[in-house]
Amino acid sequence: MISEKMKNLVKNNSVIREMFEEGKRLAKIYGKENVYDFSLGNPNVPAPKEVNEAIIKILETEDSCFVHGYMSNSGYEDVREKIAENINKKYLTNFSYKNLIMTVGAASGLNIVLKSILNPDDEVIVFAPYFSEYNNYIRNYDGIVVKIDSDKKSFMPNLKEFESKINDKTKAVIINTPNNPTGVIYKEEIIIELSKIMKQKELELNHPIYLISDEPYRELVYENIEVPYVTKYYNNSFVVYSYSKSLSLPGERIGYVVVPNELEDADEMIDAVTIANRIIGCVNAPSLIQRAIPYCLDVKTDIEAYRKNRNLLCQILMENKFEFVNPEGAFYLFVKTPNGDDREFCNIAKKYNLLFVPGSSFSCPGYVRIAYCVSYEIIERSKEAFKKLSKEMKLIDF
Amino acid sequence: MISEKMKNLVKNNSVIREMFEEGKRLAKIYGKENVYDFSLGNPNVPAPKEVNEAIIKILETEDSCFVHGYMSNSGYEDVREKIAENINKKYLTNFSYKNLIMTVGAASGLNIVLKSILNPDDEVIVFAPYFSEYNNYIRNYDGIVVKIDSDKKSFMPNLKEFESKINDKTKAVIINTPNNPTGVIYKEEIIIELSKIMKQKELELNHPIYLISDEPYRELVYENIEVPYVTKYYNNSFVVYSYSKSLSLPGERIGYVVVPNELEDADEMIDAVTIANRIIGCVNAPSLIQRAIPYCLDVKTDIEAYRKNRNLLCQILMENKFEFVNPEGAFYLFVKTPNGDDREFCNIAKKYNLLFVPGSSFSCPGYVRIAYCVSYEIIERSKEAFKKLSKEMKLIDF
Repeated sequence: MISEKMKNLVKNNSVIREMFEEGKRLAKIYGKENVYDFSLGNPNVPAPKEVNEAIIKILETEDSCFVHGYMSNSGYEDVREKIAENINKKYLTNFSYKNLIMTVGAASGLNIVLKSILNPDDEVIVFAPYFSEYNNYIRNYDGIVVKIDSDKKSFMPNLKEFESKINDKTKAVIINTPNNPTGVIYKEEIIIELSKIMKQKELELNHPIYLISDEPYRELVYENIEVPYVTKYYNNSFVVYSYSKSLSLPGERIGYVVVPNELEDADEMIDAVTIANRIIGCVNAPSLIQRAIPYCLDVKTDIEAYRKNRNLLCQILMENKFEFVNPEGAFYLFVKTPNGDDREFCNIAKKYNLLFVPGSSFSCPGYVRIAYCVSYEIIERSKEAFKKLSKEMKLIDF
Repeated sequence: MISEKMKNLVKNNSVIREMFEEGKRLAKIYGKENVYDFSLGNPNVPAPKEVNEAIIKILETEDSCFVHGYMSNSGYEDVREKIAENINKKYLTNFSYKNLIMTVGAASGLNIVLKSILNPDDEVIVFAPYFSEYNNYIRNYDGIVVKIDSDKKSFMPNLKEFESKINDKTKAVIINTPNNPTGVIYKEEIIIELSKIMKQKELELNHPIYLISDEPYRELVYENIEVPYVTKYYNNSFVVYSYSKSLSLPGERIGYVVVPNELEDADEMIDAVTIANRIIGCVNAPSLIQRAIPYCLDVKTDIEAYRKNRNLLCQILMENKFEFVNPEGAFYLFVKTPNGDDREFCNIAKKYNLLFVPGSSFSCPGYVRIAYCVSYEIIERSKEAFKKLSKEMKLIDF
């Protein structure tokens, strides 16, 4: 007697669970250290020490009813003001606390934005490959997912197709850069071109089309590339941010949504997003960790550790003739499956205790995602397994 | 361009904001200590010291990636197991970790249960007066709110009307005991009678009707009354719990949902609730505070402080001839408005710096809610104001 909407989700869930169980099964047989689990996006770098120091300081000095109590549904004003100032300093924006709504991570940030804008059958454009949860978030509000393929050489959005797919029902566009699962970053020229198309279409169709920028990987950049701040290029933008990766706090569920003043009817939208935060059941972002954030605004996770992982894994993949696009950010590699069938390839890889996620899960079959937020030692130890896999796929013959 | 569903919510929001602004305005003029703000359900009793001690101990001894990291969408297995054991010990139930899904407070607990069971136009029965957010939670999933009046003498549910309103579209019934806003508790005979009617109707209509028990005030009981554990009386029950009040942690957003094995297709429902927790955007209950809960299972908030408040406020109200039902639990008093118009009465009370919430906000006009989770001193100082209000309402003439 579960709801119709949930039925398929429950059915599909067993697939994910099987994969999880398979990992546990392999660990039991071969030992945890001999299973090369590249399937999870869970940071392996610990939170910077400043996080725990801030939490303890707050507990020791601030009033309990304040620290653990309700605040405005959009979060503590002083916390939001300090974050706004920090964004302004870094990106030359002009936000105040009013433009920020603290959220239960980026996932709830995306949900409250979509709840605030979507009417049934409104279309939301996403660029494949993309985080498959977007499908669920959009369907939560009876929106329709419109998928646009990326150029397979660069994994940049196909802007021609994009332009052709915008119509009267188009309400929003979601981008995610640095990208999960490809690791690519949309450079400034892409954002400029994308914005130009959207502005033109807004004029033609005479209604706002929102750009939603999902940015949990903003700080995880390994090349000398700037990740453009979208509100500077396009007025009807939302930025959805999370500290899950930048401070290694995914379990704590802390992030924010930026609604810029330039967005049409910004005040009303800020109200809508704040109310949505309340009524979807979050009420407010968790209070103690929220208060700890201002102490960690200029603190960074250990990006060098991820860079080292990336470099080693790229080297192993190249030596073994696997094809992939150079990952400039996030902690994922998106690798072409030599046999074209990503699910089958994942099964073959499992024989060597290598666990990947099939690209089909990101609406991009023929590829697999390798998450390198694991220990360096695991990657080192996985060398032989990758070699055997390559041999079996006939990429190398030595 | 906000969504149709959000439009009315944004419009109504200005009313709540006005009230909040009014409180701030009065505090500015008369000083914060001379404004008797009885409008908020925010605990004034600090969290028991064990909470902060547990948090610090965890930060100092447990692995950062584990403490701040992702876990299963239903929460840490060891945390759920310890909570299950504690419930079993207290209420002679038979739960394991599998029956518990950790949530972002009770608000998200209610949301994920409703998302898991409601199809569009399914009806959910609520007993007035009730927490008005239920309306939003039900409408989030296109459900229809069916309101049943309570007996105004006891504020017990009108079970005759209840029975007559159950039909083929009835999917669930929400109860909240100890109750916000009346403070009454549904005793065992009420739960038995309610369950009997629901069981009979399930047989007649041949589909499950779920009982959802919203229990954030379970521990806040001032008389020698047991709050029945509904799963022992009715199989198709969900218990939605929160530590917001029992541990004074409303800002931390920590609670759980119980899905008992006796519920029809329990395994499928557990999956559905867990997936709903993920896709509405919570992903999981905040990790650090989740891990702190097992250290505080037998710790209680300072109930004596609330009892003292209640007793003093009851005395003041009686001396001034106000009518109300004896509050046995929670931290609210539901007082009859002498003039019959609750909104006007709230406005009159404001003249004496007394802030209440009109009963209309709980679908029960003609009453006001007085929240006594404030300092004892505030209540003491409010004596004269209540006297003046009573005089103006012609309840007393001295």
